Amino acid sequence: MKPKQAPALQTTDWLNTDNPLTLDALRGKVVVIEAFQMLCPGCVSHGLPQVLRVAQTFSRDDVAVIGLHTVFEHHKAQGTKDALEAFLHEYKITFPVAIDAPSEKGGVPKTMAAYQMQGTPTLILIDRQGYLRKQKFGMAQDLVLGAEIMALVGEGGFTHRTLL
Amino acid sequence: MKPKQAPALQTTDWLNTDNPLTLDALRGKVVVIEAFQMLCPGCVSHGLPQVLRVAQTFSRDDVAVIGLHTVFEHHKAQGTKDALEAFLHEYKITFPVAIDAPSEKGGVPKTMAAYQMQGTPTLILIDRQGYLRKQKFGMAQDLVLGAEIMALVGEGGFTHRTLL
Amino acid sequence: MKPKQAPALQTTDWLNTDNPLTLDALRGKVVVIEAFQMLCPGCVSHGLPQVLRVAQTFSRDDVAVIGLHTVFEHHKAQGTKDALEAFLHEYKITFPVAIDAPSEKGGVPKTMAAYQMQGTPTLILIDRQGYLRKQKFGMAQDLVLGAEIMALVGEGGFTHRTLL
Amino acid sequence: MKPKQAPALQTTDWLNTDNPLTLDALRGKVVVIEAFQMLCPGCVSHGLPQVLRVAQTFSRDDVAVIGLHTVFEHHKAQGTKDALEAFLHEYKITFPVAIDAPSEKGGVPKTMAAYQMQGTPTLILIDRQGYLRKQKFGMAQDLVLGAEIMALVGEGGFTHRTLL
Repeated sequence: MKPKQAPALQTTDWLNTDNPLTLDALRGKVVVIEAFQMLCPGCVSHGLPQVLRVAQTFSRDDVAVIGLHTVFEHHKAQGTKDALEAFLHEYKITFPVAIDAPSEKGGVPKTMAAYQMQGTPTLILIDRQGYLRKQKFGMAQDLVLGAEIMALVGEGGFTHRTLL
Repeated sequence: MKPKQAPALQTTDWLNTDNPLTLDALRGKVVVIEAFQMLCPGCVSHGLPQVLRVAQTFSRDDVAVIGLHTVFEHHKAQGTKDALEAFLHEYKITFPVAIDAPSEKGGVPKTMAAYQMQGTPTLILIDRQGYLRKQKFGMAQDLVLGAEIMALVGEGGFTHRTLL
Repeated sequence: MKPKQAPALQTTDWLNTDNPLTLDALRGKVVVIEAFQMLCPGCVSHGLPQVLRVAQTFSRDDVAVIGLHTVFEHHKAQGTKDALEAFLHEYKITFPVAIDAPSEKGGVPKTMAAYQMQGTPTLILIDRQGYLRKQKFGMAQDLVLGAEIMALVGEGGFTHRTLL
Repeated sequence: MKPKQAPALQTTDWLNTDNPLTLDALRGKVVVIEAFQMLCPGCVSHGLPQVLRVAQTFSRDDVAVIGLHTVFEHHKAQGTKDALEAFLHEYKITFPVAIDAPSEKGGVPKTMAAYQMQGTPTLILIDRQGYLRKQKFGMAQDLVLGAEIMALVGEGGFTHRTLL
């Protein structure tokens, strides 16, 4: 079965970047998206530290790491840019983070809905051509994630840089 | 050197309890206070899980565990009761939590100032007679904390219940 | 129910001490015994690091920590003093360790049998008067263990030293 | 710089396999070798659990995991096949493990010398063509190791199986 193109990010704001990012503009790189909420314990203890390691491990020329703040509960507590900024500051998260656009009808925000995510944390891998290749709700093992990302990095005749 | 009486808690609100608590009313029990901020990583990963273990380990007849939300930075993000309620819900914190009263002059809130705390997390142990016996900024080891609390539990001829 | 006197240690050899220890000679101190085997994963990853922390936390005037090598399986691999010495050296275990005396009839060694231990690791707490107060097969929590030891330290009018 | 052929394994015995393995016979697969000693704490707590995860993660058609017991100290305690068998049994290590051939002159064993290893644990990656591609003394991160192995798995036009 052929993978499908990854849906576009629908966002209201970006932090840690001067300009909003788009998947189109990132074509050519592997994109790792961590969908999270700042009050989600599994995101704070596992998901975000893991993608921070991803950002530190792989070259930015090969892999772009993006956070996506997909607020679908506790809107008052998590729903402001101020709160998210403070959170990113305290947790030393320096990769670009987008705020998922709220739905007009309430419920889950727009990008979360477009990807049919089941909750947070959700980890998404998009290949150099923009295809959605993996989507995992919950915890991924580092060993497996490192392997999956490298498999995508190596596609299309790219050779990887030495890591170990 | 004789320990001093623990300063009274100056609070604007309480969560997880029907009635506000006072140290006076808790006289006769050992009181363990965890001063924290919801966006303080060391509080979330270490301090709060530790006092949750304290609350699960010791009898409520002997030891009262209290959280104290001492917001001294990121007031917009952390400073509302809504935000704190959502945080306590997500992190399954069920012991009583007080909101430290903000200073009229800005800066650190009132109870934090009265105890001269240096930051968060700060762990405070008050004995059955209301004396301030320990105050530790940063991380305490479980083995040491268990021992310190039990030493206070056993004072005044009390005998402890079996734990192990 | 009154606790019983702790059975005497029946040993063939001691390491990390110039002279063999006896529970009689340790009367007046709380004694913490970690029964272990050098090839028991739970002993290596949890039990032994925990009693190392106990030895570092409490005063030697109050608490004596002893290892007891209770070999009941893999006798060829674990049964020599040479092997145990190498193990203690590599794992930086510096408290006194006794070798439990093998049974003439095979099966579990003599001290292990006298205490009716179910396996390794087993943690044993003996009070200042030589009574067996706790015996736990498997993992104990640090918070609970610290509390239990301190309860015994404080018995008989002893006051503890400050730890935190 | 072109990588060199990985030196042949010089062994006296194998466990967990009916027949001795050779790097020549494994040509076509990526080979992951964990050089360890059963009394090396870093091997027990980190290196061996990590390669167990490698063995569980990657397909055996792509990646062969081998343990190499490179005894260079505590020969009496670690140097017998009995001791190693007991160790592998207790730590549930089921991949093939070779005993590195002792040097006639004493000192480090033969394979360890041929690879100029500095100690244990040492992790070695050999590509499908038998070239020595990585050698790391000490701890490797799971994320990095997963990526490095997958890079070798994907060489020569192989495509990987889905892991995440």
